[in-house]
Amino acid sequence: MRNKLGDYIQCITLPNQEIGKQMEAYIDGLTKPVGALGKLEDLMIQLASIQERLDVKTQPKVSIIMCADNGVCEEGVSSCPQEVTLAVTENFTKGITAMNKLSEFAHADMHVVDIGVKGEIGVEKVVKRKVMEGTRNMTKGPAMTESETLQAIWVGIEETEKLIQEGYMLFGTGEMGIGNTTTSAAITSVLLRQPIETVTGRGAGALDCVYHNKIQAIQQAIKYNAPDADDAVDVLSKVGGLDIAGLVGVYLACAYHRRMVVIDGFIAATAALVAYKLCPSTKYYMVASHLSKEEGVNGILEAIGVTPHVDLHMRLGEGSGCPILFQIIEMARYTLLGMGTFEDAGVDKKNYEHIWK
Amino acid sequence: MRNKLGDYIQCITLPNQEIGKQMEAYIDGLTKPVGALGKLEDLMIQLASIQERLDVKTQPKVSIIMCADNGVCEEGVSSCPQEVTLAVTENFTKGITAMNKLSEFAHADMHVVDIGVKGEIGVEKVVKRKVMEGTRNMTKGPAMTESETLQAIWVGIEETEKLIQEGYMLFGTGEMGIGNTTTSAAITSVLLRQPIETVTGRGAGALDCVYHNKIQAIQQAIKYNAPDADDAVDVLSKVGGLDIAGLVGVYLACAYHRRMVVIDGFIAATAALVAYKLCPSTKYYMVASHLSKEEGVNGILEAIGVTPHVDLHMRLGEGSGCPILFQIIEMARYTLLGMGTFEDAGVDKKNYEHIWK
Repeated sequence: MRNKLGDYIQCITLPNQEIGKQMEAYIDGLTKPVGALGKLEDLMIQLASIQERLDVKTQPKVSIIMCADNGVCEEGVSSCPQEVTLAVTENFTKGITAMNKLSEFAHADMHVVDIGVKGEIGVEKVVKRKVMEGTRNMTKGPAMTESETLQAIWVGIEETEKLIQEGYMLFGTGEMGIGNTTTSAAITSVLLRQPIETVTGRGAGALDCVYHNKIQAIQQAIKYNAPDADDAVDVLSKVGGLDIAGLVGVYLACAYHRRMVVIDGFIAATAALVAYKLCPSTKYYMVASHLSKEEGVNGILEAIGVTPHVDLHMRLGEGSGCPILFQIIEMARYTLLGMGTFEDAGVDKKNYEHIWK
Repeated sequence: MRNKLGDYIQCITLPNQEIGKQMEAYIDGLTKPVGALGKLEDLMIQLASIQERLDVKTQPKVSIIMCADNGVCEEGVSSCPQEVTLAVTENFTKGITAMNKLSEFAHADMHVVDIGVKGEIGVEKVVKRKVMEGTRNMTKGPAMTESETLQAIWVGIEETEKLIQEGYMLFGTGEMGIGNTTTSAAITSVLLRQPIETVTGRGAGALDCVYHNKIQAIQQAIKYNAPDADDAVDVLSKVGGLDIAGLVGVYLACAYHRRMVVIDGFIAATAALVAYKLCPSTKYYMVASHLSKEEGVNGILEAIGVTPHVDLHMRLGEGSGCPILFQIIEMARYTLLGMGTFEDAGVDKKNYEHIWK
C-alpha cells in the first residue's frame, strides 16, 4: 500500500511555469503600475501555471471537511466533550454553522466526510467513509496502524478525485474533530523539530488545566511512540488523526490533478506539511488563507513557503478561511481578466516603461 | 469658515456602546466558541454601535474617489507625468481600471469627484467640484490657502451627505492624483513628528532619483512653510492636497451621520489622520482595509488605533482595498446574522459555558 501511494506521488508534476510567465506578461500589459495588485497578481500567475491556461477557472469551488474523533481525548486535552464532533458534523448539513454561512456567501459548496467519527451519523448528506470509530489513544500506543493511515489518505484522494470528475476547479480544506489541535501540534513538533510548547496553542478555547494536559499528552505520545521525523507517514500514524490523513489525500490529489487548494487553519496546515514532506511539489498547488491565532500555523506556512492573505484573528477551524480566500481569488480573476490594457486606457506604454517596469 | 467646520465637528458623537454590547451578547449565543470569528465579530459590533441597530445594513455601498493635481510635481517627485491624473480620472468612468472591476465584483458603486484636476474632464460621469486647477508648488509657498483647504473639506462633506441622502450605508475612500504620496508623506511626517525618510515610500513605483527628489521636496516644503503640527488644517493647507482635504470631509461626514468608512491606502490614511486630529471620535467610524507597502501607512493606522484586515501586498491606491473589505464586512454580516444559536444546534449551552466563555 505504501508502494501504491509512492507510485501516485511519482506522477505529481510541477505547474507549468511557461504559462505562468505568459500570464505575468499579460498582467504587465494592464493599465496599472507593474505589480501594484500584489498578491492578486500572484494568485492569477499561480492559477495559470497550475491549470495551464490563461482563461483560468475558479468555479465551481468546494471545501472538503474531514470529520473524525481522536482517542487522545481520554487525556482531557480539550474543554469540549468528544460528542461535539458528531453534533457539529451533523450540523454542517443543517446550514447553521459559521462555515455554512461563509460558504453560502461565497457560492462555495461543502463536502462533509465522516472519515472516523465515533458513533453513527444520522444525516444523509454526510459522506460515509469511516475508516474506524476514531483513533486510539496515542499516549498508550500508535493512534493508527500504518495500514489505517494509508487507507485514510486514500479516502482523501478518492473523494477529491470524485469532485474533480464532477468539475470542481478550486478546493478548500476543513475539518472537525475534538482533540485535533493536539494531534496537529504533535505532528508539527516532530516534523518541524520544534519544542512542543512552541507549536501548541489553546485550540478553540482551552483552559489552563486543559492546556497543561495537552502538552503532557503530546510529550507522552511522542516519547512512547518515537515517530521517525524523516518518515511523514510514520509520524502521521503514530501521533496523528484520520481527519489529518484524509486532508493529506486532498492535497496530493489536487497536486496530481492540477487544482489549486486552500490551506485553512492549524489542522489543515499540519496536513499540508505532511503532504509537502511526502512530495515537495505539492506546495505549488497550495495557497494559505489567513494568519491563525494558533501558534503552530505560522511556522508551518513558513516551512512550506506559502504566505497568508488575510489577518482576521479567527480561530474557529472548520475550513472557515476557505470561503474568504475563495472570494479574493475570484476577485483577482474578475479584475485581472476584465480590466483594460494600456491601449484601452489611451496611455502610450512606451512613454511609461520606466514606471511600469 | 473655520468656525463652521468647528460647529460641524462639535456635533460628531460617539457610537452607541450599549447597542454594541447587545450585538456582542447576541454573537456569544451563536453556535461557535466565543470570539472564534475574530475580526468578523469586531466588525459587526462596530457596525451595530455605529448604526444603533442589530439588523445592520451594509448595502448600498460606495467608494468616494477624490481626484486632484499637485503643484509639487514640478519638482520631479513622480515618475509619472501629471497628465496621468486626468487620464485615469476619466478612465474610472469607462469601467476599465482595476478599481472598476474590484467594485463591480463587490457590487459597490464609485463616486468619482474632480476636486482639483488640472485641465478639463471630458466625461460626464465625473462629479465636477473643482476647487482650483491643482495646488501650488508647496516647496515655494503653501499648497493652498486656508480658505481653499476648508472649501475642499466641505466638498467632501457635501458629496458624502448627498450619498447618505441617497441611502448609502457603507463608504470607502479612494483617490487619484500624481504626486499625492509626496503630499501625504509631508503631512504624516509633520503630524506624527516622524523623520521624512520613515514615512516616505516609493509611491506607485519611483526610481532612485525620483525618490531623492521626493525627500528633498518634502524637506523644503516643511522648512519653507513651517506648518504648525498642532493645527491639522494648517498642515493640510501648507503641505497637503485637495484630494486629501476632500477625503477629510468624507471621514467627518461619515462620523457625523453614523456610517462606517473604509480607509484604503496611504493617501486615504493620511486624510484619516487629519480627520482624527480634528476630531478623535471619528476613529470609531473608521476601519482599515489592508496593510500597505507604503512605509507611512502602518504608522498612521497605529497612531489612529485601527488595524488592517488583509495583507495582499497591494500598492495601487485608487481605493482598491475598499471593495475587498466591503466583501469581508458583508460576509461577516451574512454569517453572523444568519448562523444558528446553541439552541438551533441542539447543544446545551449550560454544559459548555466553560468553553464558550
